[in-house]
Amino acid sequence: MNWWKVAGGILGGGVILAIGLLIGHFGISKDTKPQWVKELYTDLDEEFIKEFMKEVDNKRIEENLRALSEKPHVATSQADEDLVQLILSRWRDPQIGLDEVKEERYDVFLSFPDSKNPNNVAVVRSDGSTSFTSQYMESPLTDDQKHPDILQPFLAYAPNGTVTIEKKGSNPELALLVNLAKTIDLNGTIAIVRYGGIGRVNKAINAEKFGVIGVIIYTDPKNINDGKSDPHDSYPNSWYLPPSGVERGSFKENFGDQLTPYYPAKDFTYRIPESQIKGISNIPAQPIGYEDAKQLICNLSGSEAPWQGSLGCTYNTGPGFVQTSLFSNSDVQINVYNKRTIKSSANVMGFIRGAVEPDRYIMYGNHRDSWVHGAIDPSSGTAVMLEITRVLGRKLKEGKWRPRRSIIFGSWGAEEFGLIGSTEFAEEYYSKLRDRTAAYINVDIAVFANASLRAQGTPPAQSVIFAASKQVKIPGDSSLTVYENWKNHFNRDSPHYGLIPQMHFNEGSVYGSVIHYTGSTSNTLEVKFTNVFTKCDYKKTSARIYPAYHTAFDTFDYASKYIDPEPLKTAINRYKTASETLEETIQNLKETDETPLRIRMVNDQLMLLERAFTNSMAFPNRLYFSHVLWATRSSSFATFPGLADAYQQATETDTTEDWHMVHHQLTIAIQAVESAASTLELATKL
Amino acid sequence: MNWWKVAGGILGGGVILAIGLLIGHFGISKDTKPQWVKELYTDLDEEFIKEFMKEVDNKRIEENLRALSEKPHVATSQADEDLVQLILSRWRDPQIGLDEVKEERYDVFLSFPDSKNPNNVAVVRSDGSTSFTSQYMESPLTDDQKHPDILQPFLAYAPNGTVTIEKKGSNPELALLVNLAKTIDLNGTIAIVRYGGIGRVNKAINAEKFGVIGVIIYTDPKNINDGKSDPHDSYPNSWYLPPSGVERGSFKENFGDQLTPYYPAKDFTYRIPESQIKGISNIPAQPIGYEDAKQLICNLSGSEAPWQGSLGCTYNTGPGFVQTSLFSNSDVQINVYNKRTIKSSANVMGFIRGAVEPDRYIMYGNHRDSWVHGAIDPSSGTAVMLEITRVLGRKLKEGKWRPRRSIIFGSWGAEEFGLIGSTEFAEEYYSKLRDRTAAYINVDIAVFANASLRAQGTPPAQSVIFAASKQVKIPGDSSLTVYENWKNHFNRDSPHYGLIPQMHFNEGSVYGSVIHYTGSTSNTLEVKFTNVFTKCDYKKTSARIYPAYHTAFDTFDYASKYIDPEPLKTAINRYKTASETLEETIQNLKETDETPLRIRMVNDQLMLLERAFTNSMAFPNRLYFSHVLWATRSSSFATFPGLADAYQQATETDTTEDWHMVHHQLTIAIQAVESAASTLELATKL
Repeated sequence: MNWWKVAGGILGGGVILAIGLLIGHFGISKDTKPQWVKELYTDLDEEFIKEFMKEVDNKRIEENLRALSEKPHVATSQADEDLVQLILSRWRDPQIGLDEVKEERYDVFLSFPDSKNPNNVAVVRSDGSTSFTSQYMESPLTDDQKHPDILQPFLAYAPNGTVTIEKKGSNPELALLVNLAKTIDLNGTIAIVRYGGIGRVNKAINAEKFGVIGVIIYTDPKNINDGKSDPHDSYPNSWYLPPSGVERGSFKENFGDQLTPYYPAKDFTYRIPESQIKGISNIPAQPIGYEDAKQLICNLSGSEAPWQGSLGCTYNTGPGFVQTSLFSNSDVQINVYNKRTIKSSANVMGFIRGAVEPDRYIMYGNHRDSWVHGAIDPSSGTAVMLEITRVLGRKLKEGKWRPRRSIIFGSWGAEEFGLIGSTEFAEEYYSKLRDRTAAYINVDIAVFANASLRAQGTPPAQSVIFAASKQVKIPGDSSLTVYENWKNHFNRDSPHYGLIPQMHFNEGSVYGSVIHYTGSTSNTLEVKFTNVFTKCDYKKTSARIYPAYHTAFDTFDYASKYIDPEPLKTAINRYKTASETLEETIQNLKETDETPLRIRMVNDQLMLLERAFTNSMAFPNRLYFSHVLWATRSSSFATFPGLADAYQQATETDTTEDWHMVHHQLTIAIQAVESAASTLELATKL
Repeated sequence: MNWWKVAGGILGGGVILAIGLLIGHFGISKDTKPQWVKELYTDLDEEFIKEFMKEVDNKRIEENLRALSEKPHVATSQADEDLVQLILSRWRDPQIGLDEVKEERYDVFLSFPDSKNPNNVAVVRSDGSTSFTSQYMESPLTDDQKHPDILQPFLAYAPNGTVTIEKKGSNPELALLVNLAKTIDLNGTIAIVRYGGIGRVNKAINAEKFGVIGVIIYTDPKNINDGKSDPHDSYPNSWYLPPSGVERGSFKENFGDQLTPYYPAKDFTYRIPESQIKGISNIPAQPIGYEDAKQLICNLSGSEAPWQGSLGCTYNTGPGFVQTSLFSNSDVQINVYNKRTIKSSANVMGFIRGAVEPDRYIMYGNHRDSWVHGAIDPSSGTAVMLEITRVLGRKLKEGKWRPRRSIIFGSWGAEEFGLIGSTEFAEEYYSKLRDRTAAYINVDIAVFANASLRAQGTPPAQSVIFAASKQVKIPGDSSLTVYENWKNHFNRDSPHYGLIPQMHFNEGSVYGSVIHYTGSTSNTLEVKFTNVFTKCDYKKTSARIYPAYHTAFDTFDYASKYIDPEPLKTAINRYKTASETLEETIQNLKETDETPLRIRMVNDQLMLLERAFTNSMAFPNRLYFSHVLWATRSSSFATFPGLADAYQQATETDTTEDWHMVHHQLTIAIQAVESAASTLELATKL
């Protein structure tokens, strides 16, 4: 499908939205008289934003996208390096460039398949002959799949090895494994598991605990294709995944470079031995398409599995194949030949100096690398970013404009391997970012048609994205704003504001490196647009991406309901009172009181609010995690993850030690809320 | 000795100095025209400071001191609680009080002797009869020693137990113990050790490693009395320690409440089991006077000990007593009956709201509790603080003055037990302090006569204390400033400034809780005045308090000399360039550029400089320590303690693992210097 024109036509809205986010919505905004107050708010003028928008050229966005996604550009490949040069040359252009541009390199630990020894899953007869081998590469349904630089399917960092065994277990989730282990001896089995739910590597880590020696992972049509598995129903005939499609991915828990936790992967940096890497699996694993998975699953013996997918047969648990099948008396073999290597990966950084508060940063980032072509993710985001910088850069070079605060643009490298580029950046500039970053905006997929905006971020970012999304109309229907359309698709009933669009908080650990490690961003926002190719209502698909989470208020409610409610309630009330008082203070700021330092002071309170929730000791077993309120967690509650996890564990084990841990985590939670309240309270009081 | 009048007469200088420190010396100071610039600097006017000084009343300081030190006021005692009320009433006085006053309580883990079961060291004959028992209390040389509230000598948190053994080792330092252990089997011995060098508890922790089962600790006249041990040479006839004097003290490594590390000791806080407390000794210990120590040491058998003191006999190593002594065939017994308990301890906090930058705090603190009367330490400091707050409070209540930044006064509780009050405060207000504290000034002993000022602090505090000390003349010699006198006593040759007074950095872990944990104070300063009672030159005494340390510049030199010099040199050069550029920027700030926000920006750079050197992961085995440049350390080098310790260990063991640790620590050091350079570099550059 040639969708360049479609994409070019609909990306302009992304630019408008992003510019709205970039120039000045964060912080106090008031329409007052004194000269220096005006100076502070010039860039908030909506007319001014419209002037920018006239410059946006959809044709250029289309050209950007074409250039960016022409070749597969996995991190550190020649194609990736070519894009580094492309972005550098754009940002250094004397007519349209930025104030300062840097190429920043890190030597990072990566993992690639061996093109001469393709990974595979095989079924081997007792005489050693092979009756089945999984496909080495996706079927070439268009010319794109024929590109010689496409990496064979693999899981980055999956341990190498050849494991052969005739027994097979099924189903990845821990609870199900517990049940399964009651009826089948999983020791020495190979498990075939589906994508979805917990992370890829966690499936292997869990399985390993039950003695499983290898993991095959596939994408079930029930989870990704609304149950459709026929080739006629899938790409290139629809947006659904074709039978040979294999999801590649990073196979580790922690983000950032694995050998240099907490420190940038520079030449002076100590690298831990590979044996000390945490959050990885010790057993080989390989992804396959559902076409191949069907061969294995539909021939399994054993009793009916607790979960049934859409491959058109009854899923049995194994172990072993039914005697009447081609695979009777055969062994399953996983062959993994991944190569681990240290390679130089570049971030490209661009800087626009702020006119009034240059030491306050608004960051705008997007990763550059992809597993294959990466046309939508991440190139659509980068295509928009390049058009934004062209428009802003021209105004800048013409001397017509300069933002109130500094803007940092980042094109991150090696993101698909686990947020490596942005993490190394956060590590290198830790202290500066922690103290000066007012907001971080991440735009990954910037394409949208008539479907909804999807935004995830910390709560302070909500009003910003709401304001920006009200300024932009959706393409093809000039009567509907992005905000209204968003609200139509994802909404919630707020006790204060009525029906509003639903913001999502920290899905997975996306941009966790910025939120957790620097603790610097009061406003972290990730903007995505969903449903590029289909006009279907997102609500009606069960596709597993973007699962919904509870809101913060639900979870406060949880916490006060299930955990000793009084201490925490007191802290939350204090926080509530403090935030109401601050809100009132901002509303009532008298003109005479509005000295620049007073405004800066209140803005700093907002800026530092998020930082108050961080505690580097809160998650002793999770590298980097320090945000007490938001984090990935293993239990089913969205906030106070440390507390929720500890509570869940204690209710299960009912040991004194675990109940001690609940108390410990309760202390951490209370202290975090108290700290945040303290930050919000009037700075003019003790 | 009645020294009230002396003290009252000489404390005034302390007030002048402190006021000079408190109101406005931190940050940029320029004499420029615009109204708002003037507003920023009004409180820097020296005439204004002199006006304050006229109000200082030496008589009141004398009265304060008398009231504060009238009774022994160990933490949480009735006398301590009475002082809480005294300070509260002063600060809440409608005529001379502060803007806001708070009593803040923490339930902290303390340890006291059992008055009904006095701790003691005894020598017991084989028939069970006792031939020697150490004194239960100091000799009553003045009425003060007769006060019923005086605690018997003890070491807080020393484990209880009665240990009896006939062998005795000697000498505390680890290196010496290693040598001693070569000739004597220390297993099952009781060690008698002297105060000085490493901390009290470390002597026991080290001894324990060699099988020692109990520790007796005494003060050798060689270390404290310039060798004088005769009663006629000591108090009340001189400032030297009398033979029965026993140094009480806290017997643990880590500061703050031991059961609630990282969290304020409130009712909601999880308390770790006592068994999990780190940095304590497992063997009983008891302090005795040198009169009692003489009985034990001068009867020891064995060969001549490697260290000889001033008790008038040859010190032998033991084990056991010489056959001709009274103690032949006798056993030594340590009897410790300490009671561990959780008690409520108060900090008293006072607040003066800043007029221009209320969200920037200058903190001024002093502990309130003492082991006994605490006339000098801490009451002299508190006497001065109360006079400062009276003078400032009156101006405030009259509406004649308000400082540029907010001032926080703190009277800390339970400090003698290990900086508990200030640590709990830092824990409770962690986030706020980290983000807003511009400086912390600690005044412990504020009495000085013609002897020298002694200041310790982080490097940025140097110019502040220099400026303030130039404004004050020493009592009794109006031609000499405190600065000149200080320079005469302790000085160093600076390559940039020539001969200047010697500042000291982080002696022990004094106020480590503020420096390390909050990471918030670019300017942490502890001011002490030495030699209250003697006119002797401090240089000529060998008294062990206030030992001198190397400067930062020496240590940079060390680090680049002994550790792989290139990477670190690059980082330091970057830091140097950045600091020179910032210096230049401040000097060249044009009037037109001096908007309030720009000045705030540069000041923030200075404020955040220290924070950039902190790394919570730098010292995994030391609670709270995160300052990479300054920390207590076991090796003999003053800066980059983690690196120095790792290097020392690696040279001793020469194992790959330890050299890895050196590399790891080198990474930490480089990253810290890079971060600091990054903070200092122009905020208007990427």
